[in-house]
Amino acid sequence: MDSKAYETRVSNLRRLMKADGVGGYITTASRNLYYFAGFFEEPDPRYLGLFIPVTGEPILVVNDLYATQIREESWIPTVITWSDGEEPLDKLAKAIEDAGLGGAKFAVDDSMWSTFLLKLQDRLPQARFIPGGQYMSTLRRLKSAQEKEYMMYIGAATDKVMDMAIAAVRPGVTEASVSDVIDQGFKKLGVGSSGRNAVVGSGVYSAQPHYRATEKVIQRGDSVVIDFGGFWKLYKSDMTRTVFVGKPDPEYLKIYDAVRKAQETAVDSIKPGMTCQDVDRIARKVINDAGYGQYFIHRTGHGIGLEGHEEPSMVEGNTLVVEPGLTFSVEPGIYIPGRYGVRIEDCVIVTDTGCERFTDYSRNLVIID
Amino acid sequence: MDSKAYETRVSNLRRLMKADGVGGYITTASRNLYYFAGFFEEPDPRYLGLFIPVTGEPILVVNDLYATQIREESWIPTVITWSDGEEPLDKLAKAIEDAGLGGAKFAVDDSMWSTFLLKLQDRLPQARFIPGGQYMSTLRRLKSAQEKEYMMYIGAATDKVMDMAIAAVRPGVTEASVSDVIDQGFKKLGVGSSGRNAVVGSGVYSAQPHYRATEKVIQRGDSVVIDFGGFWKLYKSDMTRTVFVGKPDPEYLKIYDAVRKAQETAVDSIKPGMTCQDVDRIARKVINDAGYGQYFIHRTGHGIGLEGHEEPSMVEGNTLVVEPGLTFSVEPGIYIPGRYGVRIEDCVIVTDTGCERFTDYSRNLVIID
Repeated sequence: MDSKAYETRVSNLRRLMKADGVGGYITTASRNLYYFAGFFEEPDPRYLGLFIPVTGEPILVVNDLYATQIREESWIPTVITWSDGEEPLDKLAKAIEDAGLGGAKFAVDDSMWSTFLLKLQDRLPQARFIPGGQYMSTLRRLKSAQEKEYMMYIGAATDKVMDMAIAAVRPGVTEASVSDVIDQGFKKLGVGSSGRNAVVGSGVYSAQPHYRATEKVIQRGDSVVIDFGGFWKLYKSDMTRTVFVGKPDPEYLKIYDAVRKAQETAVDSIKPGMTCQDVDRIARKVINDAGYGQYFIHRTGHGIGLEGHEEPSMVEGNTLVVEPGLTFSVEPGIYIPGRYGVRIEDCVIVTDTGCERFTDYSRNLVIID
Repeated sequence: MDSKAYETRVSNLRRLMKADGVGGYITTASRNLYYFAGFFEEPDPRYLGLFIPVTGEPILVVNDLYATQIREESWIPTVITWSDGEEPLDKLAKAIEDAGLGGAKFAVDDSMWSTFLLKLQDRLPQARFIPGGQYMSTLRRLKSAQEKEYMMYIGAATDKVMDMAIAAVRPGVTEASVSDVIDQGFKKLGVGSSGRNAVVGSGVYSAQPHYRATEKVIQRGDSVVIDFGGFWKLYKSDMTRTVFVGKPDPEYLKIYDAVRKAQETAVDSIKPGMTCQDVDRIARKVINDAGYGQYFIHRTGHGIGLEGHEEPSMVEGNTLVVEPGLTFSVEPGIYIPGRYGVRIEDCVIVTDTGCERFTDYSRNLVIID
């Protein structure tokens, strides 16, 4: 992206800040920093942050170590460096005081480490701090044409990798080996893999929504939930399919059908003007009607983009209105503890009249024997 | 580990809290949570935390999603669950009030997300919050015999992977392909890989300490800094070697010798009773004496254990006394911008009389042609 695109993002943030009387935004190593500065680094005890005052130059505060790299990769000209042994929050607090903002209200990244916030609160006793997630959510949830293109690209790759993963499931293989196929699949396609973070939950573990693949051996009689994503230009995908190894009992077939119908009915209903809770209600109604409401133990979906889980939640109580450009998952599930679980997930982008799926691999029940 | 080992850790924390008048410790999804609860999860917008009051039962607050899994994996009996759409910090604040601790001082994880802290500060206006890093650093920096065993195990694997990585370096291959060899190497050995996070910095990029491997092709005339680690039972390794492709100039040989001598002199000097800054001074003196002090732009080392970078820093100003069980990296480097860089790193554990290296692959200069 050119610096103009980043400057537009900063202007959009400033408009939100002005409306709320916020004097500045502080982002530390995170997707938000990447969103504004074009530079990504994992969170680390070494402070690395961008301060965006409501007017005036944005300022990066970085350890010497990153100085050369950040000047190459970021469009932001003002960089304050600090050396090991110095206190970077002293330098940031001074820059804030110098800007005449010592008594202002600041929004900070939701994921900013508390140690940094507590140090800032100490150094700027007149300042007030609020979570910045509300602003970042507003800015990041509606994707540009460029962002949509990245997400379509990784979605298409994810469909291909799901095919490889399902082909690898058979009695006698471990969950971890299926996870390896996923990791290798993304690499073969030349896109980012989340490594071995896939959910490959078989048998009773298919009923644990956030289980990870282990050395457990997949056996006849197992439902297998396969949930993973990759990334492209740091934009994520997220997808789930569930297959059965062996001969499913009649109740399993009923559950699978309910989940599939819930997912497809919800996706088909999506259009601008409805609310996030409407999406949840539509999916949940199908599962309630099938008699499994108590086993659908999570929200219907979550936003997605630079992070796998972003705002907004597709959940009861969220009255945020769905608009074109909004991207989120639709992933109803039914989990019977001690027996099995089923989840089906695709992510979508809202269009002027409905939505498009980023992933669209067959949702027919695959039975492997 | 059995629950006794975890209970000892909680008791040790309580001793530190009592001495400082701290009423409770709050850890969220992090290595600290794993340290106390035996359950690991990545940080996430969904609150997942452990509250350890100075007396009374520790309390987990977790989303429904994790309830089954956490009851299996953790020894902690008291679990408060919350559902999507509920506010978990309301539940935590209520538990704190119920314990009569609403006006207490709390230590929180350094890496706890600010959004959680700001919500707690709102809900407990009489409470005070301080960074908990000081306590966790005190507890975690000295390793038990069991922890040492894990770190020796991953260290030995890391030596083997370094051998594979160096064997993969030759003119015409990309940095990323060397990084893949590292990732595959750890997997072959059946231990944890950090994925493609290795530093493989060649040519001018060898002078950027925190560069990552890219599609850049390694060429004759390149210094190549190879810095990576794996993990075992979540305990990390961290190691760097630097090789040269082609014929190094005389100054490179001088720089390499200075870095090697700095590293070996520092490691040989380590013993209980010295301070962390002494370790830095000893390494730095060798490099200063060689005339390259201005190009040694970072601290000499950092603690290591459940995280790749932990307290303490081996840096000027850190007068913490080195004790048996302390684990840290010794990694001097010289970086000439626009030309090349050299770094050599091993991690060590302090013994009663000196230290042992976790990694000990040859530090002779390898020249590849």
